[in-house]
Amino acid sequence: MDSTPARSQTRLDSFVDLYAARTAGMTASEIRALFAVASRPEVVSLAGGMPNISGLPLDVVGGAIGELVEKHGTVAMQYGSGQGVPELREQITDVMRLEGIEAHPDDVVVTVGSQQAVDLVTRVFCDPGDVVICEAPSYVGALGVFRAYQAEVVHAEMDAHGLVPEALRQAIASVKAAGKTIKFLYTIPNFHNPAGVTMSAQRRTEVLEICREEGVLILEDNPYGLLGFEREPLRALRADEADTVIYLGSFSKTFAPGFRVGWALAPHPVREKLVLAQESATLCPPQFSQMAVSSYLASHDWVGQIKQFREMYRERRDAMVSALDDLMPAGCTWNVPEGGFYVWLGLPPGIDAKAMLPRAVTARVAYVPGTAFYADGFGSSAMRLSFCYPTPERIREGVRRLAGVLEAEIELRATFGATLPERGLPAGYDAPGSDVS
Amino acid sequence: MDSTPARSQTRLDSFVDLYAARTAGMTASEIRALFAVASRPEVVSLAGGMPNISGLPLDVVGGAIGELVEKHGTVAMQYGSGQGVPELREQITDVMRLEGIEAHPDDVVVTVGSQQAVDLVTRVFCDPGDVVICEAPSYVGALGVFRAYQAEVVHAEMDAHGLVPEALRQAIASVKAAGKTIKFLYTIPNFHNPAGVTMSAQRRTEVLEICREEGVLILEDNPYGLLGFEREPLRALRADEADTVIYLGSFSKTFAPGFRVGWALAPHPVREKLVLAQESATLCPPQFSQMAVSSYLASHDWVGQIKQFREMYRERRDAMVSALDDLMPAGCTWNVPEGGFYVWLGLPPGIDAKAMLPRAVTARVAYVPGTAFYADGFGSSAMRLSFCYPTPERIREGVRRLAGVLEAEIELRATFGATLPERGLPAGYDAPGSDVS
Repeated sequence: MDSTPARSQTRLDSFVDLYAARTAGMTASEIRALFAVASRPEVVSLAGGMPNISGLPLDVVGGAIGELVEKHGTVAMQYGSGQGVPELREQITDVMRLEGIEAHPDDVVVTVGSQQAVDLVTRVFCDPGDVVICEAPSYVGALGVFRAYQAEVVHAEMDAHGLVPEALRQAIASVKAAGKTIKFLYTIPNFHNPAGVTMSAQRRTEVLEICREEGVLILEDNPYGLLGFEREPLRALRADEADTVIYLGSFSKTFAPGFRVGWALAPHPVREKLVLAQESATLCPPQFSQMAVSSYLASHDWVGQIKQFREMYRERRDAMVSALDDLMPAGCTWNVPEGGFYVWLGLPPGIDAKAMLPRAVTARVAYVPGTAFYADGFGSSAMRLSFCYPTPERIREGVRRLAGVLEAEIELRATFGATLPERGLPAGYDAPGSDVS
Repeated sequence: MDSTPARSQTRLDSFVDLYAARTAGMTASEIRALFAVASRPEVVSLAGGMPNISGLPLDVVGGAIGELVEKHGTVAMQYGSGQGVPELREQITDVMRLEGIEAHPDDVVVTVGSQQAVDLVTRVFCDPGDVVICEAPSYVGALGVFRAYQAEVVHAEMDAHGLVPEALRQAIASVKAAGKTIKFLYTIPNFHNPAGVTMSAQRRTEVLEICREEGVLILEDNPYGLLGFEREPLRALRADEADTVIYLGSFSKTFAPGFRVGWALAPHPVREKLVLAQESATLCPPQFSQMAVSSYLASHDWVGQIKQFREMYRERRDAMVSALDDLMPAGCTWNVPEGGFYVWLGLPPGIDAKAMLPRAVTARVAYVPGTAFYADGFGSSAMRLSFCYPTPERIREGVRRLAGVLEAEIELRATFGATLPERGLPAGYDAPGSDVS
């Protein structure tokens, strides 16, 4: 016997007949390679969803964690419960109270980022062929989870006030008419990823009402809710409906993503299933991470820190919007998000954001093409722009470069219009697997 | 609208018709409540698989992590790659080299403990109805994952030298004859959980040969391999077969479980699928945890620390074996494990470990009944005893209490023998969902 080198010499996959059916949907994005290029420092990335955590007080965090190791090291480094650290779950109820939620720590399950919460909820509810209703567009990472569980996504339109009630009613009716089972509505009510819109209070009431009438469970994903620029947070859907809303929260945007601490708040029987699913998935979420977050919350003015984050992101939002106002060619449309990380940019007719991406990267600016956020191939004439990570100056420079690429594209189309493909995209997903690059 | 209290008032599950089919297999263990009692300090728990990390140098760990926050805090607290931190993956190849494995860091995927590696591998390979061949008995946490993916477990017997080649051949033949698909053999070659046995070098050669002949992929789970008491580690199966072995490792037993850092080493195409599965499951494993483990490995004599752990566990193994020798009633059998955490105790005919557990807990000793480690209801006359966590004195006291309970049980049976049920157990699992209590 010999020590065979670890890497096979070819890319041929001898396991192709052995994979589960779900694995067929797990394919590397064709634009992933582009994103590797886009991560070079000379490229302004308006693509990623990384929070800017440079404002965190490293001395405070380091102090809290050092004390954690010193005083509670053997607990923090040990296995914990599948549901998560009780003290942290108590603190999580304080965080949720800021959005009107009264909850018991017993109904909170800590997860490895709220991404894992989406995964566990889908694991508990979705058989192949089940339907999840999603806003159009919707979060690429959630669409990936639904696809991994072979669930079918049916989109319902949004407008400037969020999910359109009539579109939701129609989506529900069409799925029911097709004899399929709706497992839940997946919605991001605040500062939507990628659309940047916020569901109005009136809409929340209507969406809750429709889901009650139709017996549809709601999965409320709220990573950005505390990052509003203009006013106090709106009441969460979960604040007004405890029995049929599963609420997901995260410390990734309000503190730091590297600990991977998110959570699900779920009705009691669902919570029990989520804990069992968590035990099967990981035994327990990282105890050290949880206690580090807990120590930070206990030792620092975390509400004040979130206020600082809000101010920083508002400044960047303003930089992006004013650059778009100043520089974008005619025919582009965008919204002014009231919080969060993202602007959704609509392109003039015939411009294909995905086809244009290689030219944009060559011009040293990156974005995520709109098709990434649809399960059905739509979105080709839109893109998501993030303002969370680059400085205001870099944001303006990125928008300037993007405007240049767009102008060239528009000119090309004006010259050769009819011979260019109107829509050249295959159905499906075409963004990076993760949303963090 | 009102703020409904978070907890529903009854245990009735209004979602029961909405769950996925896989969720039917997610049920809380009937003995979980007993384990809550068993965690009281007056009970000697020989049930849990928690490593004893009291010997870790908290000052060294605290120093390494403090420096990490200070120098690399904004990287450590940020999102990372789905595959894991490159420097840590490099260090992981050093760890694996101790068991003869030559691997490239590109083929390593970091996971949230090796439990998550079992989950991701099963996710990538197993459709409902697919077969996984497991040793009899096998790790309860892996059986739970296979069940969660609706895979069928077929057991193959072990003896004192590990998996029996003829049993493996028979299991493969019977599955193939039934027209079912074997996705992989799941094996724990070193210091088996729960059986305590180690696969001999000769057996490793035979098992590899059979799997090559039969085209069966191997999932080699090796959390305890470096915790041998008697000699240098045996060569890993993966050391002699790179193309069809997926190897799983963990820092939970050689450093600390609270960081939840494990890994999979997989053939290149499988590694690609695992990364995509990881991105869907969590976006990325916890960056902070990974860099904390990496800092520890870089700043501390981790090989020397493992040697200390080995000596501590050897002392505890010796305490357990000598207590069993001195105290167990006739008719009990056990092995002397050469490493790891566990002894597998066989009971006299007719004694049911699960039925006896409440009486044992009343007598202030806990164990895991053998049925937990079988997918098919076997194992009722056996139990797993852990020597990893309690002190040698507590271990002896625990064995003394257990011997007393067993003697009473044997006496009862001698008096009322025929009227007691011979086997009272339902098929299936009956241990706690996690293996850490």
